[in-house]
Amino acid sequence: MDHEMKQPDKKTHRSNEDKEKLINRLKRIEGQVRGIQKMVNEDRYCVDILVQLSAINAAMKKVGLNLLEKHTHHCVRGAIEAGNGDESIEELMKVFEQFSKS
Amino acid sequence: MDHEMKQPDKKTHRSNEDKEKLINRLKRIEGQVRGIQKMVNEDRYCVDILVQLSAINAAMKKVGLNLLEKHTHHCVRGAIEAGNGDESIEELMKVFEQFSKS
Amino acid sequence: MDHEMKQPDKKTHRSNEDKEKLINRLKRIEGQVRGIQKMVNEDRYCVDILVQLSAINAAMKKVGLNLLEKHTHHCVRGAIEAGNGDESIEELMKVFEQFSKS
Amino acid sequence: MDHEMKQPDKKTHRSNEDKEKLINRLKRIEGQVRGIQKMVNEDRYCVDILVQLSAINAAMKKVGLNLLEKHTHHCVRGAIEAGNGDESIEELMKVFEQFSKS
Repeated sequence: MDHEMKQPDKKTHRSNEDKEKLINRLKRIEGQVRGIQKMVNEDRYCVDILVQLSAINAAMKKVGLNLLEKHTHHCVRGAIEAGNGDESIEELMKVFEQFSKS
Repeated sequence: MDHEMKQPDKKTHRSNEDKEKLINRLKRIEGQVRGIQKMVNEDRYCVDILVQLSAINAAMKKVGLNLLEKHTHHCVRGAIEAGNGDESIEELMKVFEQFSKS
Repeated sequence: MDHEMKQPDKKTHRSNEDKEKLINRLKRIEGQVRGIQKMVNEDRYCVDILVQLSAINAAMKKVGLNLLEKHTHHCVRGAIEAGNGDESIEELMKVFEQFSKS
Repeated sequence: MDHEMKQPDKKTHRSNEDKEKLINRLKRIEGQVRGIQKMVNEDRYCVDILVQLSAINAAMKKVGLNLLEKHTHHCVRGAIEAGNGDESIEELMKVFEQFSKS
């Protein structure tokens, strides 16, 4: 499925502001994942680590919902306006299903 | 709640093998988060990014389930055997709830 | 929020076939929920009940994804084609978020 | 897997009060599922139906967490105290994994 969804030619143009915001959020998440490695190394209590993990998952979901929103506002809307919404909507639903299960 | 759950004195001793496995998984996740930053920078198609995000979320959930399992097998079991399981089970349920929502 | 999302005037026309399918699925789910009441009454093992609960949740998610898909293919697409997609897309994202957390 | 988890001989004794509470919650959920059938029949707006579906999912999750809690406090604790916690903890983790994905 992974392969089926990859469309190497497709690009999504993002404004510099959007990119910066997204990347800053992802850098924070990256730092949090490193923080968990440190907690494991320091024999920190599992429950404290699990609380941190849940916080990261929640942050990742936020990034995902943000991407989904932009995607729908731009790519999906654009495809519908161009008269070929079907494929785009199916793709959106697949990605949402995968996302809501992860 | 975050504060309530922090017990700075509590430690969880992990075998070197367990630690290494956990940290390797977390390093792979860290690399995947960096990979997404690159995808954003390169204007990659949102759906491809979302597929990657879902993969990271799934990997994080696996780490969490693994930690929960060890925690239950060691800390919770130990507390029950020592006759003070109540507090430990309540804490486990809180973490379950938080985890299943994230 | 509940209130904000309710739009009593809005209707969604569904084909008889779609309606029948949806209602049949919901009737099966209703029967499964009654089945769990029976299990509780008969002192059935909690794990067996939990396995059943998870099956119902999965069936409910499927109904939800199906509704989301129809909704996007019809209502959201229609709104975009009529030139007022913004509100419709925002509403879709809210519902996505709520759904992916539930 | 369903088969593997079924242990027809195992019973869980619940107090009448616990049973009544559980069954009342499940009856309410059953009523909500019937309510959705009515909404479908009346061509109600999909988003309103989806909001209701999310509410039912959340109620089901609550029932599940409640069952998990009782199960851990009684069955799992009992098994650990009787010296055979391993199997019981593995079963708990499987059911929790299934539950958190549903």
